[in-house]
Amino acid sequence: MSRRVLLLSSDKTEVLQALRARQDLRLQVITRKAYADLYEGCDTAFVDSFEDLGQVERAAYELSRDGAPERVVAATEKSVVAAGLVRSLLGVPGQSFDQSLWAAHKRAMKDRLRAAGVPVTDCAQAGSLRDVPRAAEHTGWPVVIKPVFGAMATRTYRVGSPQEFRRRLDEGAFDDLGARGVPVLVERLVEFSAEYHCDGVVRDGVVRRAAVSRYFTVPLDTPPEVDSGYVMDQSDPFAQQVLELHRRVAAAIELRDGVTHLEVFGTARGPVVGEVAIRPGGLGIPRMVHHAHGYDLWDEFVRAALGEPLGPLSHEPRPGIVGRTQLPPVPGLRERAAAVPGVLEARGPEDGGTANVEVHFSAPDVPRAESARTELRRLAGLRP
Amino acid sequence: MSRRVLLLSSDKTEVLQALRARQDLRLQVITRKAYADLYEGCDTAFVDSFEDLGQVERAAYELSRDGAPERVVAATEKSVVAAGLVRSLLGVPGQSFDQSLWAAHKRAMKDRLRAAGVPVTDCAQAGSLRDVPRAAEHTGWPVVIKPVFGAMATRTYRVGSPQEFRRRLDEGAFDDLGARGVPVLVERLVEFSAEYHCDGVVRDGVVRRAAVSRYFTVPLDTPPEVDSGYVMDQSDPFAQQVLELHRRVAAAIELRDGVTHLEVFGTARGPVVGEVAIRPGGLGIPRMVHHAHGYDLWDEFVRAALGEPLGPLSHEPRPGIVGRTQLPPVPGLRERAAAVPGVLEARGPEDGGTANVEVHFSAPDVPRAESARTELRRLAGLRP
Repeated sequence: MSRRVLLLSSDKTEVLQALRARQDLRLQVITRKAYADLYEGCDTAFVDSFEDLGQVERAAYELSRDGAPERVVAATEKSVVAAGLVRSLLGVPGQSFDQSLWAAHKRAMKDRLRAAGVPVTDCAQAGSLRDVPRAAEHTGWPVVIKPVFGAMATRTYRVGSPQEFRRRLDEGAFDDLGARGVPVLVERLVEFSAEYHCDGVVRDGVVRRAAVSRYFTVPLDTPPEVDSGYVMDQSDPFAQQVLELHRRVAAAIELRDGVTHLEVFGTARGPVVGEVAIRPGGLGIPRMVHHAHGYDLWDEFVRAALGEPLGPLSHEPRPGIVGRTQLPPVPGLRERAAAVPGVLEARGPEDGGTANVEVHFSAPDVPRAESARTELRRLAGLRP
Repeated sequence: MSRRVLLLSSDKTEVLQALRARQDLRLQVITRKAYADLYEGCDTAFVDSFEDLGQVERAAYELSRDGAPERVVAATEKSVVAAGLVRSLLGVPGQSFDQSLWAAHKRAMKDRLRAAGVPVTDCAQAGSLRDVPRAAEHTGWPVVIKPVFGAMATRTYRVGSPQEFRRRLDEGAFDDLGARGVPVLVERLVEFSAEYHCDGVVRDGVVRRAAVSRYFTVPLDTPPEVDSGYVMDQSDPFAQQVLELHRRVAAAIELRDGVTHLEVFGTARGPVVGEVAIRPGGLGIPRMVHHAHGYDLWDEFVRAALGEPLGPLSHEPRPGIVGRTQLPPVPGLRERAAAVPGVLEARGPEDGGTANVEVHFSAPDVPRAESARTELRRLAGLRP
């Protein structure tokens, strides 16, 4: 008898391809109608949005009339909480509803991490845009405001003062955040020197693999089409502190089996956690980690979701620095980038799942990685 | 500034009256449109059903645009899970979503209690009626089937064998259970000699008050309009075992502040837990416990929900036995019952919140309590 696996996904093809390749699985899918074609041949139930928990519940009941699936896989940030709901209601192993909130609801996450003694930014939940000034009394200004549910830096704004907030609110600057229809997280703006991330693989509650990386530029100030960063020397003292924080975060959110993407600020008082997600990072991060350390975070994600052993390493950690950069899809850029010394791989928009060219490169040290990034930006017609 | 409290309720007037009597509270309510009149003067948002979690979420966001309520109170069994959802999403203290499931979702509850070493009946979750035979392979026949969400013994059936199941299914005997639209709990039928319940008050995670009672007859075989029982001698060895089980159950479901209604089977191998609810029992149980032990479970429910101190005792535990019985609303019965020796109180349908006459009585011992119950049944024109 084939193992039944329920996938919650919109258009995330990495996971779908991995699951489809497996002969022993019977794939069930909850998705949006717009993506129906992707899932031909699967038992499929539809929702308008993964945020409508009532619809998700009914879809899950519809697909499990002959019993619960063995596993529930959330392929996207938006479906993490929905997947937790389904697991809690059907009794499926993996992150429950509350545990999923700790990895996807920015206020619940910070409450949980703070209670575990993990350094996080001060924050308060506002019920709506008009409630932001009240919530900001608890954090102090300046603040960052963002939806409590949301991926990456979308609908996220820095605001310096109550006066600035009022002015920009009246100008409609936050209309997209208000239209989101969920509470607003108000976070004290952190003073930091650089931003980092740690991407890991957790099995049986133990961190088995993890890599600390640094962004070349601050993500909130960087358009996704030029996002860039590099995997650090893991013996660096700051990287070691981040690895230790990552272990504590994975324990605090009670992650047993999964992958992590932890965002960290480098501040004068040491690393401070921004957010944690229980899915691979975006914008070329998994591919970069693969080049640097020889494991595939999407493959590990699927293995963890199915309860299968850790994957093999394709190679030993590469000496020196491995970096990545997204670049605009300029004609011929991919070929020109591939010819730059140190470039490991240049991928077109069709490979990376974004509209960008994505370039991975190695360098003996950070200054020369910076130079390689500058050279690649120049080729794309960008200022250094 | 008044304290904002969000009440999830349909027509449960005990809690509403208690909350309305308080001058320091600003009451917000999520309810069904049909009950709008009950909540005049409150901020109100409507749902078609507390089971539609998407609607509940939107209603909670609507009412908390100026910030989250201080407390969320679930007045009915049906709103327990909805209240947990709202607390988890808004960051309000009290039972979270997962914790609420442990007190309201019969499969999640049993999984949790079993993992904590509490004796429970064997069970399996079926995805639908047609999935019952598969689920029953895990428990063995005969079984009891019921909706995973549900109060009291509604839509609950004993079934002896796969053949009997198929025949009654074809006859439409389970149509109301199928129409419920939620998974079905399949539970191995327990052989038991009597049924008990334990009603308690938990504060800061410690059981502060508790009373063990016994049903005169088995609830599943007893129409609600003649349900009856009595508060036991708490020093009885079996009562002591039930009190210890109750302590373990309260810990297992992580109840910090609330009241409990625990159902227990008396079996050859000792007490076995049927279900636990985190609201006062129905059909006169709170009033009976009040007569016996001097505390009011509805008052304690409201106090726990608001984070206020334990209430006072109105009297010492009454010596002997205190019993209760529901009776059909026969004209003049209330007055005749009130004149029976040992009767403490006879309430009409307008007092008890049911369509029944409800009589509470004391007796020196169990045999004489049985006699009093027989006499009351006779007055109502029932066979002894």
